[in-house]
Amino acid sequence: MEVMQVLHMNGGMGETSYANNSLLQRMVILMTKPITEAAITALFSAADTAFHASLAIADLGCSSGPNTLFAMSEIITIMINLCEATNSKLPEFQVFLNDLPGNDFNTIFSSLLPRFQEKLSEQMKGKYGASATLSCFFNGVPGSFYGRLFARESLHLIYSSYSLHWLSQIPRGLEGNKGNIYIARSSPPEVIRAYYEQFQRDFSTFLECRGQELVMGGFMVLTLMGRRSDDPSSKECCSIWELLAVALNQMVSEGLIEEEKLDSFNIPNYTPSPKEVQPEVQKQGSFSINCLEVSEVDWSKIDSDFDPNVVSEDGGYHLSRCIRAVAEPLVVHHFGEEIIDEVFKRCKAQLAARMSTENPTFVNVVISLKKVA
Amino acid sequence: MEVMQVLHMNGGMGETSYANNSLLQRMVILMTKPITEAAITALFSAADTAFHASLAIADLGCSSGPNTLFAMSEIITIMINLCEATNSKLPEFQVFLNDLPGNDFNTIFSSLLPRFQEKLSEQMKGKYGASATLSCFFNGVPGSFYGRLFARESLHLIYSSYSLHWLSQIPRGLEGNKGNIYIARSSPPEVIRAYYEQFQRDFSTFLECRGQELVMGGFMVLTLMGRRSDDPSSKECCSIWELLAVALNQMVSEGLIEEEKLDSFNIPNYTPSPKEVQPEVQKQGSFSINCLEVSEVDWSKIDSDFDPNVVSEDGGYHLSRCIRAVAEPLVVHHFGEEIIDEVFKRCKAQLAARMSTENPTFVNVVISLKKVA
Repeated sequence: MEVMQVLHMNGGMGETSYANNSLLQRMVILMTKPITEAAITALFSAADTAFHASLAIADLGCSSGPNTLFAMSEIITIMINLCEATNSKLPEFQVFLNDLPGNDFNTIFSSLLPRFQEKLSEQMKGKYGASATLSCFFNGVPGSFYGRLFARESLHLIYSSYSLHWLSQIPRGLEGNKGNIYIARSSPPEVIRAYYEQFQRDFSTFLECRGQELVMGGFMVLTLMGRRSDDPSSKECCSIWELLAVALNQMVSEGLIEEEKLDSFNIPNYTPSPKEVQPEVQKQGSFSINCLEVSEVDWSKIDSDFDPNVVSEDGGYHLSRCIRAVAEPLVVHHFGEEIIDEVFKRCKAQLAARMSTENPTFVNVVISLKKVA
Repeated sequence: MEVMQVLHMNGGMGETSYANNSLLQRMVILMTKPITEAAITALFSAADTAFHASLAIADLGCSSGPNTLFAMSEIITIMINLCEATNSKLPEFQVFLNDLPGNDFNTIFSSLLPRFQEKLSEQMKGKYGASATLSCFFNGVPGSFYGRLFARESLHLIYSSYSLHWLSQIPRGLEGNKGNIYIARSSPPEVIRAYYEQFQRDFSTFLECRGQELVMGGFMVLTLMGRRSDDPSSKECCSIWELLAVALNQMVSEGLIEEEKLDSFNIPNYTPSPKEVQPEVQKQGSFSINCLEVSEVDWSKIDSDFDPNVVSEDGGYHLSRCIRAVAEPLVVHHFGEEIIDEVFKRCKAQLAARMSTENPTFVNVVISLKKVA
């Protein structure tokens, strides 16, 4: 089974996909909102007014949880406000929700979308009176974004949050990465190179495909987990997987997992630095970079913002659920169902210990691109 | 609950949607193929060659069964052959699969589509050699076709088979239709008028929406269950529902169903004659009629073509399954789960008796339209 498919096997959390941790996702979308807003404003002010009649937006890695339509809702609201401020007619919106074919599109279509449309309609009536309507047409688009998904020059805005750090496959040549499950301090150089080269291939394929699908002058806003440091094994980007690695290694030493099984387990993930993202964009050649930023989310904030009543005594409750939601399908696929509770119990303990002594952060790389060639 | 939603509740057959009877559907698609072919050829020969780069096709009421991609497969094959014959470059295909939000899009995306793409790829390689590929992008579009579904002038070809005879709702004013569940010989004129007017409203709304969505010069090929006769209560179009009505009335007389319950049950369906379809197209004004035909399928053919081994001693086996697939969600929604097996046992007996003495047919109305205004 391909890795990309495994990402969609329902784990215990029942909500696995490219991007599947609710609060973190929402925080990241809000943090990057000014950049999204700038892109939409630029699009709106462009000389070519074709999109003023119809605006085609894609969300790549939309998942099927409470945040699935959150970014699209923010984008539509930005557009409504822009049109209101400039006294312009609202365009028709075409929204393309993409994720892997195993994503739960039924839930999006029959449950999330009706609620979203109702809220949107209330928003419109509140602003423009009882007869106001908004034309917004939704499409589900199944497939990997490491391939073409849309017709040539059919999109105005491409958005993707917290999905692009997933690679299309586990890199080849990780045999020397024993005891680790991702890039770690003890990873040999060829392992780091294998990961980096896989990222380069995947990201440039991604840019190539999107370059074909965007109209000239169209925008793309991408957020991915990344790092500030030039060092791909720096603590800032690898520590979630290190927690999981510690838990798995403990279980190997207690004879609960076979050592060879752990040695062949690697996470198909890469958290690039801005310095690694930039040259890929330049090499590919379709885009100019409007903005390339790094931002951070405190791990502790994920719990405290979630529900102050649940958290306190049990450090990292929600974060450990996030990690489980992301990692469970991969762990189950490789190690089987039986050990899963034990793995994440240990993982959670590791997390609590870590958070009591340090203040780790998630680092996000945000890039806003304009199609110029 | 709205009728259109009920159409998607999973009945015992687990495959309910706008269009959900496998063999009949396939036969109808093949019977209407020459008309589809003529529309595509006209599109292909049009002076405006924009679509030669990218062809956007929608299937309205696609369902999620073995026939879901059958019509699209036929259409793509017609295009491939046209391009081959004229030595033209193949366009990129955008395929929009529409059905109600309760349709099982997950099954389409994760199971039907991968198999379809594999077959398509083999077909291409067989024709053009091992390196040949076809760009075909699939979208799921949830929603009722009695409303807008797509952006303005975004489609080149709209196709719909065996879905448009479903009305958007049960007509109002059917109180006088006691003992019947659809238009019948004994239906008073106001019942027939209520059904007809609902069809007029729905069909003109449909034309209005599609007129906005098709590009100028675009085509629309529609097949719906209909009738030859001018009389809406003629036997040719109502007899399936008459079989069900007989079964239900028997059960009322035996005290198994309450009379009031039956009196308030009506099927949201209308089978128009070509003479009723034509004026709606003319009134709406966006389309010219290229072709408007009536064709027939023998009821008996549905069984004999299916599997000659299963049929013989049990007349109407597959047809009764077809009827159940279509009617079960509506019957269950209105009468409850308990009586359902008994209803269809009786219905099947009625069917077998009918088929031993007559040779009833399904009448299809096929219309091919070109957007001209």
